[in-house]
Amino acid sequence: MKRIAIDMDEVLADTLSEHVARYNRDFQEAISKADLEGRWLWEIVPVERHAQLEAYLRSEDFFEDLPVMPDSQRVVKALTQKYEVFIASAAMEFPNSFGPKYRWLRRYFPFLPPTHFVFCGDKGILDADFLIDDQPRQLLRFRGKGILFSAPHNLRVTGFQRVHGWLEVEKLLL
Amino acid sequence: MKRIAIDMDEVLADTLSEHVARYNRDFQEAISKADLEGRWLWEIVPVERHAQLEAYLRSEDFFEDLPVMPDSQRVVKALTQKYEVFIASAAMEFPNSFGPKYRWLRRYFPFLPPTHFVFCGDKGILDADFLIDDQPRQLLRFRGKGILFSAPHNLRVTGFQRVHGWLEVEKLLL
Repeated sequence: MKRIAIDMDEVLADTLSEHVARYNRDFQEAISKADLEGRWLWEIVPVERHAQLEAYLRSEDFFEDLPVMPDSQRVVKALTQKYEVFIASAAMEFPNSFGPKYRWLRRYFPFLPPTHFVFCGDKGILDADFLIDDQPRQLLRFRGKGILFSAPHNLRVTGFQRVHGWLEVEKLLL
Repeated sequence: MKRIAIDMDEVLADTLSEHVARYNRDFQEAISKADLEGRWLWEIVPVERHAQLEAYLRSEDFFEDLPVMPDSQRVVKALTQKYEVFIASAAMEFPNSFGPKYRWLRRYFPFLPPTHFVFCGDKGILDADFLIDDQPRQLLRFRGKGILFSAPHNLRVTGFQRVHGWLEVEKLLL
């Protein structure tokens, strides 16, 4: 059985929406995802507000209740019939996120055993056939086949097989 | 550069001593490591006390201040000169342990970058050349070369390359 590793933030969980919503709320701004095409949120927020952007990610509740990406639950469940599915999150950057991320996965993907969750930093450590991730730097370290999951920040990145959302993952792998 | 993955409990951290100490304290017993040769603590503790044994491992502070295994800090530091070193802990069984384990590693192995910490469940997911672990079941899932780190419970296990402590790891890998 082939093995697939799947990233959490921007792939299963809509982390960016929550990040932008908190920023817009606190600074009375109206940034939309369209404003972020080809750019990180950090690139369009003034540098004197970066400490606050970072603070959102480090807060205890940030990762607790993120929206689920459309179609991800159904497609991941279908993948488990044909592949060994692992969830791999670069959680080491945000140690406060361990508990919330674990609970989030149990809540929204209850059919996945926690033995198949991996909290790491460098995804080069994963032994899998496929890695679905929005971060080009993680795909470059990974030794299997990387699949770039579209997110606003990576829309101009080339050189990877790309999927726009979970319906395309379904077409590609099922 | 070859890559080594190193387990935490019973390899870097003396988890068993803390577990036995809490049990002895609460039940006025005097179990020693010698009593545990070839056996798990679970096998010599009466079954009606297993819920308490489990509760120790799930408590918030259990993994916070475990003793460090002799020579491990010096040898792991030396290994980082010659290998890519990752720490891999099967932390998913005990979600309360994520924070304590992260802080413990930062405190006792501050020369290791957190990007090289992995909290997982099934070590078959690790892409490394070597895995040093006390659990035969994890070594069996791992696709690289497994090295069994002696612990009381595994003393009768055969079929793996075995090391008795960190001085033997030093001889084998350095």
